[in-house]
Order: sequence, then structure tokens, then C-alpha cells
Amino acid sequence: MATTRPYNFSAGPAAMPEAVLQRAAEEMLDWHGSGMGVMEMSHRGKEFGVIAAQAEADFRTLLAVPANFHILFIQGGGLGENAIVPLNLSRGTTADFVVTGSWSVKSHKEAQRYCTANIVASNTANGHTRLPEPSTWRMSSDTSYVHLCTNETINGVEFQELPDLAALGCEAPLVIDFSSHVASRSVDWSRVGLAFGGAQKNLGPAGLTIVVVRDDLLDRALKICPSAFNYKTVADNQSMYNTPPTWGIYVAGLTFQWLMHQTEGDLSGVAAMEQRNAAKARLLYDFIDNSAFYDNKVDGSCRSRMNIPFFLRDESRNEVFLTGAREAGLLQLKGHKSVGGMRASIYNAMPLAGVQALVGYMREFERKHA
Amino acid sequence: MATTRPYNFSAGPAAMPEAVLQRAAEEMLDWHGSGMGVMEMSHRGKEFGVIAAQAEADFRTLLAVPANFHILFIQGGGLGENAIVPLNLSRGTTADFVVTGSWSVKSHKEAQRYCTANIVASNTANGHTRLPEPSTWRMSSDTSYVHLCTNETINGVEFQELPDLAALGCEAPLVIDFSSHVASRSVDWSRVGLAFGGAQKNLGPAGLTIVVVRDDLLDRALKICPSAFNYKTVADNQSMYNTPPTWGIYVAGLTFQWLMHQTEGDLSGVAAMEQRNAAKARLLYDFIDNSAFYDNKVDGSCRSRMNIPFFLRDESRNEVFLTGAREAGLLQLKGHKSVGGMRASIYNAMPLAGVQALVGYMREFERKHA
Repeated sequence: MATTRPYNFSAGPAAMPEAVLQRAAEEMLDWHGSGMGVMEMSHRGKEFGVIAAQAEADFRTLLAVPANFHILFIQGGGLGENAIVPLNLSRGTTADFVVTGSWSVKSHKEAQRYCTANIVASNTANGHTRLPEPSTWRMSSDTSYVHLCTNETINGVEFQELPDLAALGCEAPLVIDFSSHVASRSVDWSRVGLAFGGAQKNLGPAGLTIVVVRDDLLDRALKICPSAFNYKTVADNQSMYNTPPTWGIYVAGLTFQWLMHQTEGDLSGVAAMEQRNAAKARLLYDFIDNSAFYDNKVDGSCRSRMNIPFFLRDESRNEVFLTGAREAGLLQLKGHKSVGGMRASIYNAMPLAGVQALVGYMREFERKHA
Repeated sequence: MATTRPYNFSAGPAAMPEAVLQRAAEEMLDWHGSGMGVMEMSHRGKEFGVIAAQAEADFRTLLAVPANFHILFIQGGGLGENAIVPLNLSRGTTADFVVTGSWSVKSHKEAQRYCTANIVASNTANGHTRLPEPSTWRMSSDTSYVHLCTNETINGVEFQELPDLAALGCEAPLVIDFSSHVASRSVDWSRVGLAFGGAQKNLGPAGLTIVVVRDDLLDRALKICPSAFNYKTVADNQSMYNTPPTWGIYVAGLTFQWLMHQTEGDLSGVAAMEQRNAAKARLLYDFIDNSAFYDNKVDGSCRSRMNIPFFLRDESRNEVFLTGAREAGLLQLKGHKSVGGMRASIYNAMPLAGVQALVGYMREFERKHA
């Protein structure tokens, strides 16, 4: 099976580890002798309690989440969080946004429903191909938080290091949307107040959102914040106040177990994935950079390891390229409509062999058509 | 496999048809030769487009949803909808609530964040065991909608007929929370403005919410309504504005197909389920009513066909009853903590044989302990 499955480069929902899918299929009718499938379990029963607690503990271990952060499993998605974060953190005052691509544009726009949302830095002028240097950001003196999308899925730009807001003279908490690179690399939690991510890129199925929130930020929600999305209510009830997306938590938990068993040399878990992801991205970027046939427009300092948009210099060949790719077992390579061209999303579940197969196809296509 | 699986009486997430689980397991790694599992598909791709369109069409057929109603697949759950409905419909003015049990109490409380939420009828005084007669409801002259929970999962009361608000002199739309009996019986859409339900009782896994909303109610959301939950935005984008819970839509779609193939005599689909559900409920209620050992406190006029709370008259035997039930392959019969005793949830996926097995166990337990 493993050798015949196509490589799926979807930006999300995205490819999942085959071992995770196989386990989920095997346990579908009976989880661990309980007589129930996971979808059939009460979220308040002891069986699902075990599944949820293990998933939370494993996520905490994988990403070294400190004890003063809560891990919440909720519904709503990244787009939902664009409202839920200001409902919980803005106090109706001011929030600062660093605009680096399509997702942070959306986050800024949505926050305007709940507070004064300022743009303190933007790379719109260069078409979201470089990241604004943190030393140039001019945070508002009264901002309730600073929002950053640390990997822009559509534009393919990624922060290689989190900004140190305190060193920049800003005491407000940093909020990161890490939807599309969560668990692909480590997180410096000393610089973060809150992190959120939809699961459907690197962790599991669509419909599960993970929020990691520091203790002191729990209790400042606006009165108009829905109970189901009030971080304190969710935390006080171990994510069981509203029925959580139980299947998503289960599949994410299987993915966490898979991640913990990944190794590269002496490394394991997220450290191993980080090394593997860097190698995968390097292989594809190096090939593109050494070709006169393909092009990537993102500055070398901030290229995403997860989402790699690229172009055929002669775009009249796009359809032929995509058709041939599908025939070669390389799926979902079409770029986002707002950027065009191609995009290869190479999340944790994409093996090096998948990127090698893509580069092989691209080389052969170039040879035939150059 | 079918004969050895226990019967699962969970109130939700709840038992699912075995055929649905088997299909989901079989297609886990490769949906219809696409080379992708359903969880791995872009929600905007053609494969998932087929799945979502079929699910919507089948739900429309099953419940005879008229063309002037939109069917939305979103996140948030029933508890999320307690906020999302007033955010979309209340215009910040007044909304009327009929309180009939735990769920409508919660809905009324949450709506107070967004509007003046009036209680126009309540059965709190009789412990949620009878339903207030619609002719006694005194709707507010300026109400934006009237909210009703048509089946109270915890208390086991169900409206056997929807109220005709217009005949009562109220022009406002009726909003029904049909989470725990959707697709168990037909719906008279001529009396409904909006219906919502979490999927995790009768339709699929937790994390999918289905909203059925009449055309003219789409465009009155408050500015503070999150985009992800704005019905008009969701409808305009065929439920793809925010990434929808794709797995939940797929599994619900399999369930819809299963429902369409159910028959009872000349009946099929929801009509067949309605007859089967009535027979299942009658069997259990009749047994309880004819026993001096067990008791159900709900008035005969409004007993739920889906959720049947019952008590041992000698409650000191509760633990022995539950332990024996588990050993007999009858799972999750413990009542909700706010009501106590036992509860048998017998949704569409529970066959008559499961209720027969429960009654058989109860009869034998009574014989031993009476």
C-alpha cells in the first residue's frame, strides 16, 4: 500500500501519515475492546477521557509547552479564531497586527469587529515576499496583544524566529497563528502569550482547533464572547464544556504518537521533524533556484518550509504540468487562486521521498519542454 | 461482527450504524480511487465538492427541505448555536424562549449576551416533565424570533407537533433546536424559520452542526457576528468560507445514504425511521409503565422517542443495575447527573433488537431483585 499511494501536496486539509489512517480504520468499530468506535463515545465517558488526556499530554511533550499554558481543543478553525482571539483578549481596546500575507490580512479585518485593529507592519508593498524586520515595527502603546501569522500558507513566507516583543519595548502578549507549521519546528514559548492553529494541515482533520494560552490571559473576555469559545470556560471544563470535536482529537492524538516515534539520527519528535522538514524544503528550493524553467519569488530569508509556491516561467504550460503530475501520482499541486502557479505543501506527513518524486518529475518536465 | 457488538445507549456522541462505520473504515486510505482519504482532501477540491453536494442533496430529500431554505454545514455545535442564532437573528432587540428543559435553559441564558431574552413559557415548575401548551404562550409583540428545543435530551420531553406561531398571532419566525431528534421524524417546515442541530446524536460525529435557514432570515446579523458563523457568508460560500468539518460532512453523508435505504413496510427514509422509532419507544415505555420496579416521570403526551430517562424505584440498586447491564453488552445507560437514574438514548442507529435486549435485561433484573 505504502508504495502505491500517490503523494498529496494539498495545502489543507492535507496528507496524513499512512500509519495514522490505518490505525483509525482498524479501530473504527471498536476502540481498545470498549465495544464502541471513537465517534460513538460520550465525550464525558472514561474511554474518551483517556483519549483526550493522552492527546493533551503528548502535545505538551512534543512542543515542550510550559505548565503555565493551557492546551484547549475546540471548534471554529483558524478563521473562527480571527474573531475568538479579539473576543477573548482585546478588551474592546486596541490590538496590533503584523500583515505578512493572506491570513494576517483576514485576521486584521475580522478583529475590527471587536476593537481598534492597527497594522504596525506590512509587507503588502513587496507582494508578501519578504518579512518586515521586527525592529521596524511600531507597536501601539496601549495594545492588548500583537498578532502574527508565523507561516503564511498561501504566500509561502515563514518566520524563522519569533520576535522578542519585550526586547522591542512592548509588554503586550504575542499571539501567533501557527496553523500551517505547528509541530513542524519548536516554539519559543517565552516569547508567546497565545498560539492557535487549525489541525487540518499538520495535526489531523478539519474541525479541530488547538489553542495554547498562558494562564494570565484566560480571564479577560468580552461579555459578547460566546460561552463555547470563552477560553476560561473551555479551560475550566477541560475542553468539555461544549462537545468537542472528539474524532479530531483522537486522530490528532494518533498523529502525536506517530510524531513522537519519528527519528532523524539522535533526534526524535519535533526536533527530528524540524531537521527532516528543513532537508525537504532545501531539496525543492535548491532545485527551483538552479533552474531557469521554474521560479520562486519569496526572499531566501523567510521561505516557508511547509508551503512552497512556485511558477513555471512559461505559464502557458501550467495545465500540461498539472495533468502530468497527476498521472505521475503527484496530487493537488495547483497554486492558490490569489497567487497562481503551483504550490507544494510539504507538511510533516510528506516524506522526503515525496519531495524527491516531485523534483524528479519537475526535472523531467523541464527536460521535455525547455 | 454485527451480532457481537454491544448496544450503546449513549446520549451523544452516540451509536452509529455499523454499515456507516464499516464504509468509513474501508475508504479511509482511498476514497473512490482518488488516492486520498477524505480527511486529506482540500475542501475546495472536486472530490470533496462531490461529497458535500451529495450530503446536502440527500439531507434535503430525507427531510423534504423546501427550496427556499439553505442547508449549512458549520462548526460550533448546539452550544455554539446558542450564541450564533441570536448573533444572526436577534438584531439586538428581543427574542422569546420557551423553556422546557436543560437545553432551552442554556439557550435562553446565552442569548442574554446579545438581546433581551424573554421566557414566554416554562415547565420548570413541574420539573420539565410536561410541555407548556402553545395556546398559553404569551409572545412579545416585538420579538425577533421564538426559540424552542423540540427534544430535550436530558429531560426526555419532545414536542410531538410543532406549534403554529402564526395561528397564535405571532409573526416572528420559529427557531428549533432539533439536535437530538433530527431525522428521527418529519419536520413541518411551513412552521419553521430556522432549525439547527449538532450532528453527534442522530447524524454523525461531534463537530458538525447543520443549520437549515429560510432565505429571508439570512441577512440580519449583528456586526459583532464572527464571519465564520454569519449565516449569509456561509450560505454565499456553500459552507466553504471557513474550512468546514469535512470528515463530519462525509460521515453524515454516509448516514444519510443509510437512512434512505431503511424501510418499514411501504415506508422508507425518515418515514420508516419515524415508524420504527415509535415502535422502539413504545416497547420501552410500555414495559416501564407496566412495572412497579421502574419508573418514568414524563407525562405521556410529551415523552421523547429518542431519550428515555427512567429510575429504579429503589435507587440503592443503581450500581448493580449498571454493572450488570455492561456485562450484558448494554452500554452507557447512566442518567445525566442533573436528573439521576438511568437514560436510554435510542436514536436512529439503535435497532429494535437493542431495545428488546434492554427490556429483556430489565425484566430479568426485576425478577431477581424485586
